Amino acid sequence: MSYQPSFQDIAHLGHIEILTPHPEASLDFFTNIIGLHESGRQGDSVYLRAWGDYQRYSLKLTASAQAGVGHIAFRVKSASVLQQMTDYLAQHGYIGTWVDDLGHGPAYRMASPDGHWIELYYETEKFAPGPDLAPGFKNQPQRYIPRGMAPKRLDHINILAKDVKASRQFFHDMLGMRITEQIIFDDGSERGAWLTNTAKSYELAITQDQSGANGRLHHFTYYMDTREEVLRAADILIESGVNIETGPHKHNIGQSFFLYFLEPGGNRCEIASGGYFILDPDWKPIIWTQADRAKGQAWGLQTIASFHTYGTPVVAGGK
Amino acid sequence: MSYQPSFQDIAHLGHIEILTPHPEASLDFFTNIIGLHESGRQGDSVYLRAWGDYQRYSLKLTASAQAGVGHIAFRVKSASVLQQMTDYLAQHGYIGTWVDDLGHGPAYRMASPDGHWIELYYETEKFAPGPDLAPGFKNQPQRYIPRGMAPKRLDHINILAKDVKASRQFFHDMLGMRITEQIIFDDGSERGAWLTNTAKSYELAITQDQSGANGRLHHFTYYMDTREEVLRAADILIESGVNIETGPHKHNIGQSFFLYFLEPGGNRCEIASGGYFILDPDWKPIIWTQADRAKGQAWGLQTIASFHTYGTPVVAGGK
Amino acid sequence: MSYQPSFQDIAHLGHIEILTPHPEASLDFFTNIIGLHESGRQGDSVYLRAWGDYQRYSLKLTASAQAGVGHIAFRVKSASVLQQMTDYLAQHGYIGTWVDDLGHGPAYRMASPDGHWIELYYETEKFAPGPDLAPGFKNQPQRYIPRGMAPKRLDHINILAKDVKASRQFFHDMLGMRITEQIIFDDGSERGAWLTNTAKSYELAITQDQSGANGRLHHFTYYMDTREEVLRAADILIESGVNIETGPHKHNIGQSFFLYFLEPGGNRCEIASGGYFILDPDWKPIIWTQADRAKGQAWGLQTIASFHTYGTPVVAGGK
Amino acid sequence: MSYQPSFQDIAHLGHIEILTPHPEASLDFFTNIIGLHESGRQGDSVYLRAWGDYQRYSLKLTASAQAGVGHIAFRVKSASVLQQMTDYLAQHGYIGTWVDDLGHGPAYRMASPDGHWIELYYETEKFAPGPDLAPGFKNQPQRYIPRGMAPKRLDHINILAKDVKASRQFFHDMLGMRITEQIIFDDGSERGAWLTNTAKSYELAITQDQSGANGRLHHFTYYMDTREEVLRAADILIESGVNIETGPHKHNIGQSFFLYFLEPGGNRCEIASGGYFILDPDWKPIIWTQADRAKGQAWGLQTIASFHTYGTPVVAGGK
Repeated sequence: MSYQPSFQDIAHLGHIEILTPHPEASLDFFTNIIGLHESGRQGDSVYLRAWGDYQRYSLKLTASAQAGVGHIAFRVKSASVLQQMTDYLAQHGYIGTWVDDLGHGPAYRMASPDGHWIELYYETEKFAPGPDLAPGFKNQPQRYIPRGMAPKRLDHINILAKDVKASRQFFHDMLGMRITEQIIFDDGSERGAWLTNTAKSYELAITQDQSGANGRLHHFTYYMDTREEVLRAADILIESGVNIETGPHKHNIGQSFFLYFLEPGGNRCEIASGGYFILDPDWKPIIWTQADRAKGQAWGLQTIASFHTYGTPVVAGGK
Repeated sequence: MSYQPSFQDIAHLGHIEILTPHPEASLDFFTNIIGLHESGRQGDSVYLRAWGDYQRYSLKLTASAQAGVGHIAFRVKSASVLQQMTDYLAQHGYIGTWVDDLGHGPAYRMASPDGHWIELYYETEKFAPGPDLAPGFKNQPQRYIPRGMAPKRLDHINILAKDVKASRQFFHDMLGMRITEQIIFDDGSERGAWLTNTAKSYELAITQDQSGANGRLHHFTYYMDTREEVLRAADILIESGVNIETGPHKHNIGQSFFLYFLEPGGNRCEIASGGYFILDPDWKPIIWTQADRAKGQAWGLQTIASFHTYGTPVVAGGK
Repeated sequence: MSYQPSFQDIAHLGHIEILTPHPEASLDFFTNIIGLHESGRQGDSVYLRAWGDYQRYSLKLTASAQAGVGHIAFRVKSASVLQQMTDYLAQHGYIGTWVDDLGHGPAYRMASPDGHWIELYYETEKFAPGPDLAPGFKNQPQRYIPRGMAPKRLDHINILAKDVKASRQFFHDMLGMRITEQIIFDDGSERGAWLTNTAKSYELAITQDQSGANGRLHHFTYYMDTREEVLRAADILIESGVNIETGPHKHNIGQSFFLYFLEPGGNRCEIASGGYFILDPDWKPIIWTQADRAKGQAWGLQTIASFHTYGTPVVAGGK
Repeated sequence: MSYQPSFQDIAHLGHIEILTPHPEASLDFFTNIIGLHESGRQGDSVYLRAWGDYQRYSLKLTASAQAGVGHIAFRVKSASVLQQMTDYLAQHGYIGTWVDDLGHGPAYRMASPDGHWIELYYETEKFAPGPDLAPGFKNQPQRYIPRGMAPKRLDHINILAKDVKASRQFFHDMLGMRITEQIIFDDGSERGAWLTNTAKSYELAITQDQSGANGRLHHFTYYMDTREEVLRAADILIESGVNIETGPHKHNIGQSFFLYFLEPGGNRCEIASGGYFILDPDWKPIIWTQADRAKGQAWGLQTIASFHTYGTPVVAGGK
C-alpha cells in the first residue's frame, strides 16, 4: 500500500524562527525576562532554548526588516517517514527544497497554502549540557536555571491564515496532524483550527486573519509546569515595564492558562500552563460555534480587540 | 511484512480492576474521599471513573477474599491492531481468552509472565453525561464535581514482579510499550522499569517484589492537574483520619509529585501531579543505578521501608 | 488622660449580616457552592461560618425584601475597651442601642455617616466543633470539609458610600482603624479608602457610590489560603452555571487575587487570596491618583463597568 | 498606672544578625541562591534584605570564627514605648547598653536568660529603592527581582534554649509577646514555645537544646507567598548541589509549609509559606503533648534526627 500521512508521523513541533527588527532588544528580552538560554549563533540569527527542551534549540531569532515568523519546523518520527512524507508532498504539489541549518539534519522546506514556511526534519542534535548546566535530575535535559520566567519548553505556535480551511486541510491531509478543536461559524466558514502531533491537545493553531493578509504570526507559546509560574510571569512583566496584552486567564479552547504580551520586536508571545491531554485514539474535533465564541474566554473574560486584529508582520490597516 | 508490535499500537492504559475484602468501605472511600463517580454495577463489582476520564470507567472495584489487582486493561488504537496484536501474542505463546465486560467490546485476556492478568480491547463506551454532569467546558467529558480530592483521570499502575526483566520484556516486546526509565543494580539485575504508551513518561511501572511472591500490586494512581491539589489531598486524608504512607513529595523517576496511602481494602493508592512529557521519538531509557537509588526521593526524602515490602495481596512474611 | 480610640482597639471584623430576597437559594449557594457551614437559625436568619472562622459565625443571612447589608459587626479587644469606645462614641454623637443576637454578648449598634449599621461587641461564643467537625490539626477551629469552594475565613467587606471622606473619618477617628490605601482624585475628592484593624492590609473598604444612594454594599469577601483555590473556585462557578463578574485577577490595591460573582440574592461576593501584610507601625497610606486608577487592575485588566455601578440594594437608575 | 509590657508593644521582628565562618560563600548563597539583596556593608558585616522587607535590612551577615546568631532585633511600636519598656527591663534586672548600627536609631542591647543577644529599637531607615528597584506596584517597597528563590520577607527565628521556660517567660513577661503554641511534656517540662508580636502565629520559636549548650540558633526563616515557590526553592537547592535537610512538608505547629537546609556557614535556614493568622484577642496557647509530638510533622513525616540535635554554633558532642 502506498504511503498516506498518519497521526504521529510527525513527532512534534521542533522549533520556530521568529523575525525581529530589534534583534538586540529581542534577545535581551528572551534571555533575561523570559529566561531562555542561548545555544548558538550563525549569520543574523541567535538560537535559543528553554531548560526542558531536549534539542539544541527551539527558537531561532533572526534579525529582519520586519517582525513575523520565518519558518516553522516539525520533527518527523524517523528518517524513513521523512523520506516517504516528502515524496508524498512533492507528488501532491508541495515541492520543497532541502535546507541546512544549525542543530539538525536536512530539512525539507515548502510553503503552506497561506504562505507560511514549513520545514520537516528528522536528524537532530540533542542538547548536551556542559558542567554548568548539568541537571540535578537525570531525566531532564538541563538543570533548571531560575532566571526570569524560566519556562520549560516550546509548546505551540498560532498562525493567522487568510483561508483557515485550506491551511487546516494541508496540515491534516499532507502532514497527518490530528484536528482537535475547530471554530466554525453559522455560515459554515472555518475561523480556527487546533491540531496536534502528540497527546497535548494542540501544537499548532490556525486562526482567521481578518486583515486580508497572509502568512502572518498570531503568537507562539512557551510552557510552564504550573499556573503559579504564569501568575509570577505576569508580575515579572509588570515589574519589567512590559505591557500585558491579556491574561493571566483561562482559554476555553485547549483549557490552558494563558498570558499574552509583545516582545520588543513586536511579535506576540504567550506563556501558558495546563491544558488537557488526549488519550482517545478516536478523538472527534470539538466544534465551537459563533454563539460559543461570543461568550469570551473560559471564565467570561471578553477577548480584547487587539487579539482579533494584531499579527506580525503588522499590516497597514490590519489593526 | 508481518506484524510487529510498535509504540502506540496500544493507545493507553484503559482501566484497572482492584480487589477488596471490604467493598463497602472501599466504595465509600473512592467516592467520598477520593471523589470518583459511580458509573455502573454488575455482579460483585462497582465501576468508577474520575471526572476527566473519557470512558465509562477507569476503575472496576470488585469484592474479593483478599486485596490485589484483578486485571489491567489497555485500550488498543484500532480494531485491526487489536486483531494483529492478539494473533501475534497467541503465536508467541500468550494464549488468551476473549472476555466481555461492561463498557467495552471484546477483550483479550492473558496472563503476563509474572501472573498479572492483562486485557486488550478496542471498542469502548464513551462516557455520556446526563444533565447533572454535563460539562461547562465543551472539551471535557464531564463537569468537575468538587467532592473529596476530585482527581482528573487514571494515570498509571505500578505492579510488583518477581522477575522485573521478564515482565519488562513482555510489555515491551509483545505489547510495544516504550521503556522510559529503569533501575539496574550493580550486579546487572533489573529492579524496576517504567513504560509508556503515550507522551506521559509512564503508564506502567514494574518494580521488584522482594517477598518472593508474584502477581502483586504496588499501587495505582489518579492524576491531578496541580501540585496544590495533591497538598490539599493530604489535608483531606488527615482530616478523614486516613494515614499517609509517604508524601507529598517528588519522585526522581518520572518527576511526579506524589502522595501514598492505603484504601480500606488494603490496596496502596497514589494521587500525583506533574511529571514530564516525552516528545523525542528516539528516547533512550534513563538508567538509575544502585547508588542513585540510595539517595532517596528527589528532594532527599528517604524511601520508607513499607514502600519496599508492602504489596497486595499481602504475603505472609512479605512485610 | 481621657480615652482616644487607637489602632487595634478593635480586634477585627467580626461578622456581617447580608440581606436576601431569595433566602433559600442564597442559603443553598452559600453552603453548597461556597461551602460555608450552618451554625444556627433564629427568626428570619441563618448563621454561617467558614471552616477557619473561630467564632460561631461570620455571616448572618437574613431574608428581606431586598438585598444589601444588614449590619457590620466588629469585635473589640476587651470588655473595658468596648465600654470606653462606646462612651466615646456617644459623647461624639454616635448614640447607639445595645442589641442582643446569637453567638455574642451585648453589641452597641449605631449608624455610620453613610447609614450603614455598625455593631461593636466583645464577648463571643467560640465555635466548639462536635465530633464530626473536630479538626485533625489541633490549632484549627474545625476540620477542613472539602465542599464547594471551601474558603477559610471571612476577610473583609467593601461598602459603597455617598461621601467616602465622611465614612473614612468615622472609621478612623471614632473606631481607631488604620488607613492603609486611598484613592484621591485630581480635584481632591476621596473616592476610596481601605482600613484595617490587623496586620492584613484591609478589613474594610469604602468606595464611591456613583448612584447617589447611601448605605449600600459593594461586596464582602471570604479568604482562601492559595491562589490555586481561587482558580478552582472560578471553575466551580462555571460548572454551576454561575456568571463570573470579573476575575480571577489581581488587584493593585491590597495586592489580592480576586474573583467576583453575585449570589442568588443579588449581593456581590468575592473569593480572594494573597494580599500583603503591614508590619510597620508607622505605615503611611498609599495614595492612588486618578491616573493610577485609569490603568486598571494590577496586570492591566480594565475594571468592568458594572463594578463601578452595581451595589445592593439595587438603586433605580443606579446601574 | 505604671508601665506593663503588653502585646504589640513590640511591633515585629526587625532583623537578625547571623555569624558565618565562611562569609564569602554565605554571601554568595544568600544573594544568588536565596535571592536577597545587599543594602549595605560595614566592618565585617554585609546587610541584606528581601524584596518585600520595608526596612533597610532584615539580615546582618557577619564574619565570625563560628556560626550562630549574633543578635536578634525587634522593632518597638513607638519611641515612648521603647523608653518605657527599656526602663522596665532595667528595673527588672535586664540591664542593657545602647548600641548604634546601620539603618536604625539607638538600640537597647541585653542578654536573654539563655544568653541570646536581644536588641530593641524604634527609629528605622525605610528602604528607598533607586530607579532600578522601584516597584511596579505602589504599595510594595521594591520591585520583585526573580533571582534565586526570591523570598518576600523575614518571617521568624527559632532559637535553642537550655531552659525553654525561662526564655519563654522572658519574652512574654518582659517584652509582652503573645504565646501561641507550646510543647509541654508529660513531666511538665516545657520543650518548645511559639510567640508572636503580630497576627502571624509566630515570630519567635524557642525549642529545647538537647546538647546542654545555650545561646544557640536552630534556624531563621524567610517567607514566600505561595507553597509553589517553596517547591520551586527545593528544586533550586537540588540543582545548586545543596543538600535538603528536610521538606518540603507541613508543620503541625504553625501550619506552615517548610523547607530546611544549611547555608555554607553552617546555619540552618528555612523557606516557608502559609501558616495561620490569629484574630482572636483572647487566644489561648495550643498545648502539644509528648504523644502529639511523637506523631511527627503534619502529614506524618517523622522529624529527622539532625533536627533535634544540630544547632549553631555547633557544640562538640551536641550532635
